[in-house]
Amino acid sequence: MQELIKKANEEAVGRLLKAQPTLVGIGTAGADIPNMTKKTILHAGPPVKWEDMSGPLRGAVIGGLIYEGLADDFDSASALAASGEITFDSCHHHDAVGPMAGVVTYSMPVWIVENKTFGNKAYCTLNEGLGKVLRFGAYQEEVVERLKWMEEVLGPVLKETLALVGEIDLKTMIAQVTQMGDEGHNRNKAGTSLLIRELAPHLVRVNYDIETISKVFAFMHSNDHFFLNLTMPACKCSLDPAGGVKYSTMVYTMARNGTEFGIRVSSMPDRWFTAPAEIIDGLYFPGYSPADANPDIGDSVITETTGIGGFCMGAAPAIVQFVGGTPQDAVNYSKSMYEITLAENNTYKIPALNFRGSATGVDIQKVIETGILPIINTGIAHKDPGVGQVGAGLVNPPMKCFEDALEAYVEMLEKEGVIK
Amino acid sequence: MQELIKKANEEAVGRLLKAQPTLVGIGTAGADIPNMTKKTILHAGPPVKWEDMSGPLRGAVIGGLIYEGLADDFDSASALAASGEITFDSCHHHDAVGPMAGVVTYSMPVWIVENKTFGNKAYCTLNEGLGKVLRFGAYQEEVVERLKWMEEVLGPVLKETLALVGEIDLKTMIAQVTQMGDEGHNRNKAGTSLLIRELAPHLVRVNYDIETISKVFAFMHSNDHFFLNLTMPACKCSLDPAGGVKYSTMVYTMARNGTEFGIRVSSMPDRWFTAPAEIIDGLYFPGYSPADANPDIGDSVITETTGIGGFCMGAAPAIVQFVGGTPQDAVNYSKSMYEITLAENNTYKIPALNFRGSATGVDIQKVIETGILPIINTGIAHKDPGVGQVGAGLVNPPMKCFEDALEAYVEMLEKEGVIK
Repeated sequence: MQELIKKANEEAVGRLLKAQPTLVGIGTAGADIPNMTKKTILHAGPPVKWEDMSGPLRGAVIGGLIYEGLADDFDSASALAASGEITFDSCHHHDAVGPMAGVVTYSMPVWIVENKTFGNKAYCTLNEGLGKVLRFGAYQEEVVERLKWMEEVLGPVLKETLALVGEIDLKTMIAQVTQMGDEGHNRNKAGTSLLIRELAPHLVRVNYDIETISKVFAFMHSNDHFFLNLTMPACKCSLDPAGGVKYSTMVYTMARNGTEFGIRVSSMPDRWFTAPAEIIDGLYFPGYSPADANPDIGDSVITETTGIGGFCMGAAPAIVQFVGGTPQDAVNYSKSMYEITLAENNTYKIPALNFRGSATGVDIQKVIETGILPIINTGIAHKDPGVGQVGAGLVNPPMKCFEDALEAYVEMLEKEGVIK
Repeated sequence: MQELIKKANEEAVGRLLKAQPTLVGIGTAGADIPNMTKKTILHAGPPVKWEDMSGPLRGAVIGGLIYEGLADDFDSASALAASGEITFDSCHHHDAVGPMAGVVTYSMPVWIVENKTFGNKAYCTLNEGLGKVLRFGAYQEEVVERLKWMEEVLGPVLKETLALVGEIDLKTMIAQVTQMGDEGHNRNKAGTSLLIRELAPHLVRVNYDIETISKVFAFMHSNDHFFLNLTMPACKCSLDPAGGVKYSTMVYTMARNGTEFGIRVSSMPDRWFTAPAEIIDGLYFPGYSPADANPDIGDSVITETTGIGGFCMGAAPAIVQFVGGTPQDAVNYSKSMYEITLAENNTYKIPALNFRGSATGVDIQKVIETGILPIINTGIAHKDPGVGQVGAGLVNPPMKCFEDALEAYVEMLEKEGVIK
């Protein structure tokens, strides 16, 4: 039986390592993401009902409904959200991922990233920047106006640019950023920089006026997280083919909706194992404290699931100035992840560990055996709708997700007669 | 007397630490660099006569004469160079620095970097890119054509861009790149990326056609060393005010002309202490070996003199893939430099050393006492004119430079009656 599981896990992590995430273009959620309607709202994490949603997710839903013209204000949007007319679903059920609240609505432009090895695609909205933004639960006029500009200008300009650039090999680009102090989750300064320089010679050729082109450059330049919304779908499309390998105990999804943390395991691909999301241990912006924090939220933990993000912090020592700790802590976090993973990444490497491949492919068995939980670095949202980011730090998934998953896995083996 | 020296060195290194290198514009060598004529050729390193010049420096001189229209080909340029009609001088005698051969001629566009604290300026040509380039001693038609394009297009476009951008604080930018895997000498990928994204929103607004603007972006994007020619004058203008502090034993210039390595010491600011340049221990491109190598060449060691470059290799672990060794070696090189320096940099910091400031301000006394020589990472030029780069690696200055400098320093103290 151990041999059976070992082979299954080799297959699952092998698929992950063979992934070739490639940026192929820009579309819109409505036109490109499967099964979207004008009244569908996708969100981060496992499925969650309106009445169970946390403050920042509610705020983002409200902003999304106003942005789509389905409601005028907080009250009418809240009433609509509660009415049963809106279809809420997990991004992950639609080949998509979203940072923080992760709200995706019909009209939003989305990056289209294809795993060239397996042909599957993943989608993610474009990053809105810092300050008051939908993903942190803000829904004010400036948020909605920015989303409109992204729909009408930013998305189309970048779509036309990408048509000139051609496809961009994101695996190679992410490999480079891990040599440049990024870990691909909370530090994306190198990634954003590499993307801008890659696009620049072509972006100037699009059929828009100079002021618009300049504004697009300035928008990307103003936001070091712009590249996050590319690492996320790159990771998502890398992981999806690893779901559904019979007997594999590898985690192929981790995600949080702000209320619950959920994981999915390869051999039980459609089942979420959830538990209440944790509060983040981190550095708070001036004026805020842990009392203001919403529990852990967002699909961005897809980066850790792929072996970058928190798992790759040893490659990004400067991140400790944002999430806390010392560079040695960052290296130690990266090292400890080898205890709970199936492989070392063949492409994403950690210079400080003599270019050792980052720990990749979390095994629920190893998590339970060692008691070591995946390390995640993340932004912290205010618990109330409309406020925004209040800090950043480190967090783990609840152990219960792994315990329940292993229990269900053993039940499955029993049911199939593999063990008695 | 020790107190006298200590105070002098505090003053010298204090001036270096207080520097505020700032990119203020682009000019031309002829119009902006002091004391240039159509027949002046500046070169890297201490002064050297035509007959003593190494192959790559001769190649670059020949290319420079052809570029300026003073000669038609190798033979006529060689004859002119040997005729006595050309004024050869060290870049350092003209507030300038140049990578590798470092040849600067009248018509070349130059970055203008000002030390805002002291008001002095430094100049450097724009980086030509990889392959056959003047700085490695190539002088073929493609080299000269590229220089013409840089004069007629690249320089003017960037000059107009900078007029829109305003000044760029290079100290902050260099501080950022040392958090992004660059050390500012042989790894400039982050720096080049940050520069491009800083310029982009403004570059699109210059009064040139789209194809030209696109080509300028593509040129910068194609060359990860583009930023080197900004770190160099940033370092040069940071160091120059530290020259001329009475009794200071701090090195404020290190430079090589391909034949000799030379240093200058703060308290004897106009005197070069030279010795034959060393052969570089490094990784060679396929088809080349140490037998092809020219001795150490270039003004780029101004980065190490300022405390970045080789001194900051611990911040740039990925560089070992280019110059040899392991990331731990890189950290060890950075650590050992604290033994021979006067201060830790207040701005350029090494994440792997828990953000310790890079070792800054080489003291000739400490070099002699410890026997530890400054560590330099550098490109390797072919010894013959016209070939180009053949590898990259690590090198030290000859100990003799420091021995002679200390001897001269002691003589000076004796002459002044400070010691008997």
